[in-house]
Amino acid sequence: RTEHMFFEEDRIAAFREMICSDTVEEREAALDKILPYQQGDFEKLYEALEGCPVTIRFLDPPLHEFVPTEEADIEKLAKAQGKSVEDIKAIIASLHEFNPMMGHRGLRLAVTYPEIAKMQTRAVIRAAINVQKAHPDWTVAPEIMIPLSCDTKELKYVKDIVVATADEEIAAAGIDMKYEVGTMIEIPRAALTAGDIAKEAEFFCFGTNDLTQMTYGFSRDDAGKFLDAYYDKKIFENDPFAKLDQVGVGQLMKMAVENGKATRPSLHCGICGEHGGDPSSVEFCHKIGLDYVSCSPFRVPIARLAAAQAAIAEMD
Amino acid sequence: RTEHMFFEEDRIAAFREMICSDTVEEREAALDKILPYQQGDFEKLYEALEGCPVTIRFLDPPLHEFVPTEEADIEKLAKAQGKSVEDIKAIIASLHEFNPMMGHRGLRLAVTYPEIAKMQTRAVIRAAINVQKAHPDWTVAPEIMIPLSCDTKELKYVKDIVVATADEEIAAAGIDMKYEVGTMIEIPRAALTAGDIAKEAEFFCFGTNDLTQMTYGFSRDDAGKFLDAYYDKKIFENDPFAKLDQVGVGQLMKMAVENGKATRPSLHCGICGEHGGDPSSVEFCHKIGLDYVSCSPFRVPIARLAAAQAAIAEMD
Repeated sequence: RTEHMFFEEDRIAAFREMICSDTVEEREAALDKILPYQQGDFEKLYEALEGCPVTIRFLDPPLHEFVPTEEADIEKLAKAQGKSVEDIKAIIASLHEFNPMMGHRGLRLAVTYPEIAKMQTRAVIRAAINVQKAHPDWTVAPEIMIPLSCDTKELKYVKDIVVATADEEIAAAGIDMKYEVGTMIEIPRAALTAGDIAKEAEFFCFGTNDLTQMTYGFSRDDAGKFLDAYYDKKIFENDPFAKLDQVGVGQLMKMAVENGKATRPSLHCGICGEHGGDPSSVEFCHKIGLDYVSCSPFRVPIARLAAAQAAIAEMD
Repeated sequence: RTEHMFFEEDRIAAFREMICSDTVEEREAALDKILPYQQGDFEKLYEALEGCPVTIRFLDPPLHEFVPTEEADIEKLAKAQGKSVEDIKAIIASLHEFNPMMGHRGLRLAVTYPEIAKMQTRAVIRAAINVQKAHPDWTVAPEIMIPLSCDTKELKYVKDIVVATADEEIAAAGIDMKYEVGTMIEIPRAALTAGDIAKEAEFFCFGTNDLTQMTYGFSRDDAGKFLDAYYDKKIFENDPFAKLDQVGVGQLMKMAVENGKATRPSLHCGICGEHGGDPSSVEFCHKIGLDYVSCSPFRVPIARLAAAQAAIAEMD
């Protein structure tokens, strides 16, 4: 995930400038200020992982999560942008969304502002090149993960930008470097059209938190108000955000893996989300042919144990 | 749709009392005030349709759409409830949702407040009984449509309440009356589990506006900000809210019809939503085996023509 990298003081100022820009040129100038920070972060990441595969997820949250709410910060931004406080407030107001979960986020940001995807690709590839040069014995092969696709043409549009930018950087460095571009499957339509999406994606990562929200049609932030009644009345036996719903969400995942691999046999698939720490969910993921599980660090031992047990159960 | 019926002055006061109630008894007392209004509306509806089938959709929007925003109205409600203005404001604040589209609405309201479903069932059935008695030559057979289901157990919980209430009313009136209980399929998981849901539903109505939102993972209110870029860049050729997405949303509908009819061969299926006024969407609905289309009145001629053409095309 790259969004947390935007929140440190110097970066958030540049990112807010990007959000409040009127032209592509202004946006690019603001993004140029962020590029070296992102690149530096990625270099540290590659160094720490010593040549192991690193998957980097492009920007996901809606832009309104980055704008200032304090009057002093709004004034500071207005000054930096040469705009009035009212103008800045109008921009902030224009970013309001009725349903932010279903709003202008993920891949949709890269469709409207391709500059963001370009900058993030440059940061990923330049960092990989530098670390590869410093450690010729490692194989640095970045995996770029584009979140929230719902359509193959949409993914192709952004992937083409990523590939053109990455190839340009690699050619300029005069080195040979492999990289992969994949997507997150976290919207029902992405799972339903996975056969087409796999034409553009070298890997799938199921974002099962979001996929559960969209498939059930309730957001995790709001469902707390009524899910207790569902448990009390024995309608739901488990929290679908903790234990993967194999019948609905799992059906979509199974279809997506099958159709995706039919298009691209080398497609590798995994999950990101809380479910990666739940044994029965890990077992299900193994059964439908997922290769890896990503989860929060404190759940790694549970996930490893569950994955091992699933593999052993299959051997019996 | 029944929600508009709650907004007239006398009713909205009673409905707000219901929302601000602390106990089931208080909620029932407030709902008792609304019952005669709803019943009166339904009687007029049955009279106007002269014995033709009438489908009534139970309450769908989240409760925060009904609470007052003006200070004077808040004070009035506080007085009526014997509560302080602060208490009422706290209740209103507690109803806030991050993603109302994915919040506490539809069937979920009936799970947490079964009293609402009971009152609406009484109003529907009592109205039907009165009109049937006044017109013995008509066949009044109400169809009760429960919106937003995502799971068969959830639907069963509410359907059981509806059936118990309806049967009690019919028995008390000493007449013979048929009625049907169905559900809206507007959440991906409902379509994915339609084979199970059909155990509890005598008909399906596809809410294609909501189903499109949930399947694509973007809300119609927010998508306006980025969809223009999708048309400009030739990613989307059509507005999926105007022309049904046959590949994604349509795939879910097709699965749901097939699996639903496999469980219950008599299941009848239709759609509610803007797509009912688009010829290519109507043709698709006909192909996958839908029986009826519901749309806004000014689109009825287009819908009829498209349905006729679809039927003729099939005969060729």
